[in-house]
Amino acid sequence: MSCYPYPMLDRPNMIWTRQTDQNEDLKVHEWIENVEDSVPDWNTYDITILGVPLSKSSISTSAASENPEAMRQAWKSFGTYNLDEDVDLAQLKVVDLGNVKQHVTDIEQTHQHIQDAMEAMRKHHPHTLPISFGGDHSITAMLVRGWKQAHPNETIGIIQLDTHFDVRDPKTLGPANGTPIRQLIDSGIVQGKHIHNIGLHGFFNAKELKMYADQKNIHYTTMKKARKRGVTNVIKNALHQLEAKVDTIYLTVDMDVLDIVHGPAAPAATPGGMYTEELFEAVQIIGKHPTVKAMDIVCLDPRKDLGQQTIKSAVHTMLSFLTGYCKR
Amino acid sequence: MSCYPYPMLDRPNMIWTRQTDQNEDLKVHEWIENVEDSVPDWNTYDITILGVPLSKSSISTSAASENPEAMRQAWKSFGTYNLDEDVDLAQLKVVDLGNVKQHVTDIEQTHQHIQDAMEAMRKHHPHTLPISFGGDHSITAMLVRGWKQAHPNETIGIIQLDTHFDVRDPKTLGPANGTPIRQLIDSGIVQGKHIHNIGLHGFFNAKELKMYADQKNIHYTTMKKARKRGVTNVIKNALHQLEAKVDTIYLTVDMDVLDIVHGPAAPAATPGGMYTEELFEAVQIIGKHPTVKAMDIVCLDPRKDLGQQTIKSAVHTMLSFLTGYCKR
Amino acid sequence: MSCYPYPMLDRPNMIWTRQTDQNEDLKVHEWIENVEDSVPDWNTYDITILGVPLSKSSISTSAASENPEAMRQAWKSFGTYNLDEDVDLAQLKVVDLGNVKQHVTDIEQTHQHIQDAMEAMRKHHPHTLPISFGGDHSITAMLVRGWKQAHPNETIGIIQLDTHFDVRDPKTLGPANGTPIRQLIDSGIVQGKHIHNIGLHGFFNAKELKMYADQKNIHYTTMKKARKRGVTNVIKNALHQLEAKVDTIYLTVDMDVLDIVHGPAAPAATPGGMYTEELFEAVQIIGKHPTVKAMDIVCLDPRKDLGQQTIKSAVHTMLSFLTGYCKR
Amino acid sequence: MSCYPYPMLDRPNMIWTRQTDQNEDLKVHEWIENVEDSVPDWNTYDITILGVPLSKSSISTSAASENPEAMRQAWKSFGTYNLDEDVDLAQLKVVDLGNVKQHVTDIEQTHQHIQDAMEAMRKHHPHTLPISFGGDHSITAMLVRGWKQAHPNETIGIIQLDTHFDVRDPKTLGPANGTPIRQLIDSGIVQGKHIHNIGLHGFFNAKELKMYADQKNIHYTTMKKARKRGVTNVIKNALHQLEAKVDTIYLTVDMDVLDIVHGPAAPAATPGGMYTEELFEAVQIIGKHPTVKAMDIVCLDPRKDLGQQTIKSAVHTMLSFLTGYCKR
Amino acid sequence: MSCYPYPMLDRPNMIWTRQTDQNEDLKVHEWIENVEDSVPDWNTYDITILGVPLSKSSISTSAASENPEAMRQAWKSFGTYNLDEDVDLAQLKVVDLGNVKQHVTDIEQTHQHIQDAMEAMRKHHPHTLPISFGGDHSITAMLVRGWKQAHPNETIGIIQLDTHFDVRDPKTLGPANGTPIRQLIDSGIVQGKHIHNIGLHGFFNAKELKMYADQKNIHYTTMKKARKRGVTNVIKNALHQLEAKVDTIYLTVDMDVLDIVHGPAAPAATPGGMYTEELFEAVQIIGKHPTVKAMDIVCLDPRKDLGQQTIKSAVHTMLSFLTGYCKR
Amino acid sequence: MSCYPYPMLDRPNMIWTRQTDQNEDLKVHEWIENVEDSVPDWNTYDITILGVPLSKSSISTSAASENPEAMRQAWKSFGTYNLDEDVDLAQLKVVDLGNVKQHVTDIEQTHQHIQDAMEAMRKHHPHTLPISFGGDHSITAMLVRGWKQAHPNETIGIIQLDTHFDVRDPKTLGPANGTPIRQLIDSGIVQGKHIHNIGLHGFFNAKELKMYADQKNIHYTTMKKARKRGVTNVIKNALHQLEAKVDTIYLTVDMDVLDIVHGPAAPAATPGGMYTEELFEAVQIIGKHPTVKAMDIVCLDPRKDLGQQTIKSAVHTMLSFLTGYCKR
Repeated sequence: MSCYPYPMLDRPNMIWTRQTDQNEDLKVHEWIENVEDSVPDWNTYDITILGVPLSKSSISTSAASENPEAMRQAWKSFGTYNLDEDVDLAQLKVVDLGNVKQHVTDIEQTHQHIQDAMEAMRKHHPHTLPISFGGDHSITAMLVRGWKQAHPNETIGIIQLDTHFDVRDPKTLGPANGTPIRQLIDSGIVQGKHIHNIGLHGFFNAKELKMYADQKNIHYTTMKKARKRGVTNVIKNALHQLEAKVDTIYLTVDMDVLDIVHGPAAPAATPGGMYTEELFEAVQIIGKHPTVKAMDIVCLDPRKDLGQQTIKSAVHTMLSFLTGYCKR
Repeated sequence: MSCYPYPMLDRPNMIWTRQTDQNEDLKVHEWIENVEDSVPDWNTYDITILGVPLSKSSISTSAASENPEAMRQAWKSFGTYNLDEDVDLAQLKVVDLGNVKQHVTDIEQTHQHIQDAMEAMRKHHPHTLPISFGGDHSITAMLVRGWKQAHPNETIGIIQLDTHFDVRDPKTLGPANGTPIRQLIDSGIVQGKHIHNIGLHGFFNAKELKMYADQKNIHYTTMKKARKRGVTNVIKNALHQLEAKVDTIYLTVDMDVLDIVHGPAAPAATPGGMYTEELFEAVQIIGKHPTVKAMDIVCLDPRKDLGQQTIKSAVHTMLSFLTGYCKR
Repeated sequence: MSCYPYPMLDRPNMIWTRQTDQNEDLKVHEWIENVEDSVPDWNTYDITILGVPLSKSSISTSAASENPEAMRQAWKSFGTYNLDEDVDLAQLKVVDLGNVKQHVTDIEQTHQHIQDAMEAMRKHHPHTLPISFGGDHSITAMLVRGWKQAHPNETIGIIQLDTHFDVRDPKTLGPANGTPIRQLIDSGIVQGKHIHNIGLHGFFNAKELKMYADQKNIHYTTMKKARKRGVTNVIKNALHQLEAKVDTIYLTVDMDVLDIVHGPAAPAATPGGMYTEELFEAVQIIGKHPTVKAMDIVCLDPRKDLGQQTIKSAVHTMLSFLTGYCKR
Repeated sequence: MSCYPYPMLDRPNMIWTRQTDQNEDLKVHEWIENVEDSVPDWNTYDITILGVPLSKSSISTSAASENPEAMRQAWKSFGTYNLDEDVDLAQLKVVDLGNVKQHVTDIEQTHQHIQDAMEAMRKHHPHTLPISFGGDHSITAMLVRGWKQAHPNETIGIIQLDTHFDVRDPKTLGPANGTPIRQLIDSGIVQGKHIHNIGLHGFFNAKELKMYADQKNIHYTTMKKARKRGVTNVIKNALHQLEAKVDTIYLTVDMDVLDIVHGPAAPAATPGGMYTEELFEAVQIIGKHPTVKAMDIVCLDPRKDLGQQTIKSAVHTMLSFLTGYCKR
Repeated sequence: MSCYPYPMLDRPNMIWTRQTDQNEDLKVHEWIENVEDSVPDWNTYDITILGVPLSKSSISTSAASENPEAMRQAWKSFGTYNLDEDVDLAQLKVVDLGNVKQHVTDIEQTHQHIQDAMEAMRKHHPHTLPISFGGDHSITAMLVRGWKQAHPNETIGIIQLDTHFDVRDPKTLGPANGTPIRQLIDSGIVQGKHIHNIGLHGFFNAKELKMYADQKNIHYTTMKKARKRGVTNVIKNALHQLEAKVDTIYLTVDMDVLDIVHGPAAPAATPGGMYTEELFEAVQIIGKHPTVKAMDIVCLDPRKDLGQQTIKSAVHTMLSFLTGYCKR
Repeated sequence: MSCYPYPMLDRPNMIWTRQTDQNEDLKVHEWIENVEDSVPDWNTYDITILGVPLSKSSISTSAASENPEAMRQAWKSFGTYNLDEDVDLAQLKVVDLGNVKQHVTDIEQTHQHIQDAMEAMRKHHPHTLPISFGGDHSITAMLVRGWKQAHPNETIGIIQLDTHFDVRDPKTLGPANGTPIRQLIDSGIVQGKHIHNIGLHGFFNAKELKMYADQKNIHYTTMKKARKRGVTNVIKNALHQLEAKVDTIYLTVDMDVLDIVHGPAAPAATPGGMYTEELFEAVQIIGKHPTVKAMDIVCLDPRKDLGQQTIKSAVHTMLSFLTGYCKR
């Protein structure tokens, strides 16, 4: 049991076994494969899953580090067949690469591992679409950085479903979970005008952050406006604007975009947010768009969850995205 | 304290007492009557309530067996007067017959008791409308079977509000809670084309089950489609189609039809489901239709509930149905 | 540490401190001021906050007495800047006066303190708008009484967002939380025709109470009707009707107006109620109206809350109201 | 269903039913009888149970008012046969009289009802031993007062198992739950020297209270001392001292005497307290003593309980006391 | 992934993976091995673990079926090295065989599988000591039956740590969790005089059951007596008596033997029971005895657990037993 | 509100206010003072409290960072008078200095602040005894380092009440919470032979760690041995040994020394540990010893607590220590 292919990755802590007697009902946990001891034939895979169990970089106390394992455990509640859309995800081959190795006290080193993991995925099997399970939102900066490292000539756009701008100042906070978008803009990796934030609302962003966003030409649509215009229209419009300008659209879903009633497990859950049905619809549309090439789901603290409401919604978010992907 | 009239029934474990000093505010627990030691005058009653505390037949672990007692305890939070509709349910006389006796290890014997209880109700007081509190969904097969036993010449239709088809194969599972609709179809008691399932959605039904449903001509409307067409329109349409073809419409409400946010206590609660206001509206319309002659509420595990959200919604579902009934 | 200015008030139990190093992000807990040992210069303030930790007067068991402290602790999750509306509440000066002193066993004495506190606020700094945090709904009768004491010639109107009429008979219950509106009507302080109740629904008001409401010409719009007409339309209409007839509109928000899914912490939480986004929109509109001169938030038992859903919504309700106020 | 014999009592909210088919296993809920519509033959009974659902008189927020119903519901987990002692409680006849009527806002009136209930029990059937379920500790003053009213010439002693002295000043607090012992001493109903408090400990009594206790010659043994001497020795010694001096020993068990680990549901639960096995042993010894003629169990808030630990211990406390009683 | 060796077994649902980089700290989850696709070399193993996820046979509602997976997940909190005893369990080789296949509705078939699994273990690798994780106590009857099937000439003794006799009548209940000891006695597989029950107490066994136990000469020591004599003395005495009379001692630990404070997750948790330190000491002594050849741990419902207290104690119970085993 | 005296400290987030009307009952939250804007007269103080809200350095996920605020909030449940010992802590003057400033992502910088804070306390007011509230156990290394910085010529001994050795290798983990004792030994600040660890037990320390401890001559007494010898004897013996060899004894209490039943909130809570009464007795004896000059309490995650059991025990631990201190 020696040579796990990625040096900066651990296996998932626990993996689902396969029972000998097949039943009719293929479940997500039976469908998604794990990496065995030998290097898999990457060509056969469509989607790679990466766990990023880091939440030491969070401003508030967060156990989002436990989210990747919690999402894996929740796979069992879902089948591969989407009845609403008559799409069977089993047509895709998905492999779970495991988790980025975490240093107990050196956040910088962990951040480097995250960046390296994305870069390695882009180099070893660039045809697969990576879906990363955070961890807190700090990881998005590292993942996009890793992408840029592998594809230095690409122009990258971001669709961000989030209650926050996440443009706080890394000079004060370090590479914390309030700063990833600013890190990417200030380092020139992504331009503000190529970022579309949808779902911001209420009393959860300082005025200075809005001013920064305006100055950098970040596109944003508050929840109230999105509901008036129709969330799907806003999403389609963002995709339409981006497809003309960027090579790659990166989707980042901060689970705190959800209303506290629909996503109680976000460390910074707030009233006034998005409903899960709006989120599922949004990511399905985004998943369908050919320019969208990576996705992450962040800021879900399973210890705060109520009756698995948020963790099941996170899995559904991934599956809705893949439903869209199947329709490409 | 000897001769409780139904041999296959127990009394409810606990019953509400009546206080000596009346107040203005008639509550549901004061309104619904219990069976005393002598046989009541059935002619005076409109509605009979039957507890069916069986969940050993569940595929997943479930304490839905505790639902009948939990619903009875929650009656106290409701009055008989419906302000929205200006209807006072106190015009109906309702009697709680108690619970079907449960064998600790012999599920088949319990199932027989359930069937016998329904048959007895149809024979002793066929003018009353029975409302059954599950228990898991396996009981619906037994209840409908009991109905058929009593009314062998009736054509029975079913309106099923459910996240699942419940047409898994009893050959593998036995008469479990994933199979009741298939049991009824395969035994010829109900025809597939007389079944309307509303509320299915997402990743919670295997493709094979959909194929079975198609093959048997089950009518179904996924949640997404139902919202597009209007849930009340879909309900009215189903009633309209059925009234022409069947003698009796049986309504079965699987509480897992609710979104996990609105009904956290369903053992298989899922995101993407129905909202309680949609459910209350649907059952009120159904309750109004004269062909609807029985109702059950199943798959509610009170131990999973959050702040009594689901148990109160289950009681409200019954009361909304009765509001419709009063308007017949 | 001697002369706290209001003899019938205690300080809040705990107060937020201010850190020496300012950051960009002004939070509500840093913005709202406390009364120090000397009498503040009232002229500089716009808004006064009053805690009323009384719930011994509740019909059902309630820890709503703990709500004022819980709301203060939740301030930290909110900034002063409202992104949806581009309004910064920091333009207002707000002072928290503390809590009305509570007698352990003499509810009447506590009620007198509440009335005195409102009267004192109206006399010492009538230009400030008082926002009171209950406690149970019994306090509204005392607060309005105190207002009337200070302004005997004013005609007072009430907008009540509530699941209940709260017109039960104080002869039976004493000045309990089911009776405040009836107390005010029967004592001639407010006329029934100047009361608009929005959000009533379902099985939670006895028929006798509706008959009383009709007889006293209370205006009420059930939740179903409000949704059909549009909640904002109903609110605007109520304001329009009242502005012509009264000098002062008092807004009382009983948190049990919320659906049990959106506000689980109300002692009498029910299915079928208002959603938080509807509530926030409603109070923002009300806050904008110049005739609205006082507000309270009652019946929130923090011990029943799930993941701070209700307590955060209560704070958001206050802030949405103030957003409206800023737009006057 | 009209003439419940005690005008100041309500029936229990819910009562256990009896099933038609007897099994071998007589449970406490099947053994304890309820009062029906006609006056029972008191001569046949040994023990009367009285619920006193009052906790509005508590200094801290408390739902101890819900304890009587919670204890009744927990009876089902216990049989009548005590295996350790080979004693079957079924030899006693026990009747549950119901609950003292509660006024919503007039604590004084409720207190009067409590006193009247005890007086009535002493007059109608003085041979029965009353066991009262609180409610908070304020009720003990009323119950002992009622006893004194019925037996004005008796000298009453008290054994109090408690973390607190409960001798705070009713002049400040009114007849609250911190004051009952002082009320009884100051009104001359019980003398300080006839009170034995066992179980006090730690940082939960002000020095002034100890000084009052010393001045009034209250006997007290802190938990540390009690463990050194042996809890049973301390109990036996207290009984021995009292039997020579008083006509009646009243036992009051404040559940907060338990360590927070053993009794988490006491509103003022503390570390450093008694263990349940010590409590059960103590009350069994006390129950055996012929001079002990009444008992109460107070200050248990079922909403604070963890896994029914405290409520089951409260029922066990009653049953251990009755085990002792059977051995008289 | 085809030929799992035991046809009546499933793999565990999830298994722990092994990370590539070893650290100093061998944890139990890294030490216990799983069965791979080919048949292992049984000779190398000392201990076999068998999950028996059955609790449909429980009298009260129970999710003890989830215990085997919960215990496996809790392994991670334990190392193999026992500091108190300076014993490293890593000297043993342990393999987890997986779970007995469960039929959804046919309890009898599941019971047969359990019996077959034990019989197979005894035949394929009789030198290994089987440790079974229930499930409810009904499984013990089946496991001992399987043992007898494999070793028909052996005399079997039982040490039972339990709050209950478990000798209720299978004629009424079927092979439920209150009946296993009676099943074994009445079928002649084990004689009453070869059973030692330690830990019974309080009000949790009907008098008839004690009479049955006396009649069958079951040895039992109530908790009170055990504490007086010293739990370890009672255990040693039982071992001493049995070693002279039987070939095999089977240890069954019903987790409800624990006090409700120490083991809140037992479906029938009671006050007055054993403490975990007493349990660990007892099973270590038992594990050391060479005649003890099998062990089970039953009646732990992980959904009732508080902060993993009971599940961690169950794992510790197994490890304490194995510590004793290492000292043989 | 500018010049808080310690640059590396924040104020506590919330502070208790003082009410205008004094009552008889001085509570801990009224007794412990806060630092105001001007530098206090240090000479008047006996004890300083320091919050160290760091748990990013934890190996497992931990919210121990929230402990300092949680302990402050729990002060209100305690008075200053210790009835068991007839000692009033109010004779001491205690000031709460606030919390060490935390960097969001730079653990090293936070560690430096901790060290600086201790050094500053030793320089500005060396006569005060510092009590630090963690945070995780990594802080102990920094606090002792700070002490050594201020008192370079002192020999320091440590009494450690802990389930773990905490001598894991910082080369792998960095300065994490498993490593503080090793950090101190390897850097020569404390010698192994001057460390007494009491309370270790069970399966929670790798064999390599014991070997390191042996090699460094750390004194340790497992829980089993401590109970056999008497915990107080073991403590007294450790003090006796240390007083001859060191200038300063530093007491560190890792709350995970408690049994999981007595201290559920420790991130690594285990069965088999110390009981709270043993802990309180131990720290009282230690507090009495004149060579003991500092204390910390670490590894308490309030989010894991059950009914405030652990947080109240942590406060009681501090108060028991101070009771000992008063007896010096």
